[in-house]
Amino acid sequence: MTSFRFAVNVTPKPGILDPQGRAVEGSLGHLGIEGVTAVRVGRRIELTVAAADEAAARAVVERLAGELLSNPLIEAYAIELLGAASSTRSEVPA
Amino acid sequence: MTSFRFAVNVTPKPGILDPQGRAVEGSLGHLGIEGVTAVRVGRRIELTVAAADEAAARAVVERLAGELLSNPLIEAYAIELLGAASSTRSEVPA
Repeated sequence: MTSFRFAVNVTPKPGILDPQGRAVEGSLGHLGIEGVTAVRVGRRIELTVAAADEAAARAVVERLAGELLSNPLIEAYAIELLGAASSTRSEVPA
Repeated sequence: MTSFRFAVNVTPKPGILDPQGRAVEGSLGHLGIEGVTAVRVGRRIELTVAAADEAAARAVVERLAGELLSNPLIEAYAIELLGAASSTRSEVPA
């Protein structure tokens, strides 16, 4: 078994209202920051999957991302492989 | 001016309790998913900065990430450059 560390980036789809992004934009003036636009706030989930190979691990992450970590109606997700550690039983630290 | 699109990934520091991560782990059994551990839930903020060059844009993002987008006591952040578009006045779509 190999342990794969993945990140799932979940962001609001284009056109979907993003109140947190608007809130960040509204705070920029108080900080005296100019030139920042199009702020979108989403989630980033990092997780370790133990699987026989990368394809099997990625399939697990795809399922998780679509069924548990994102709302497909209003959010898009992207999966990123962060690293792999091969052993009979390994744990990548959180 | 050039428009730079950045992502800021904010994650709970190691050792900091992450209730959302625990909640995801607790839901895995219901989905029949095994082998997933060390789930950490953070935020991902994407934004566009108009600046003279990449160094100036990155400095703005560094300030935002440390002062507004993360809580330095319990969270770590990483900055990622997603792309650049040069023009006198351009907007990278959200």
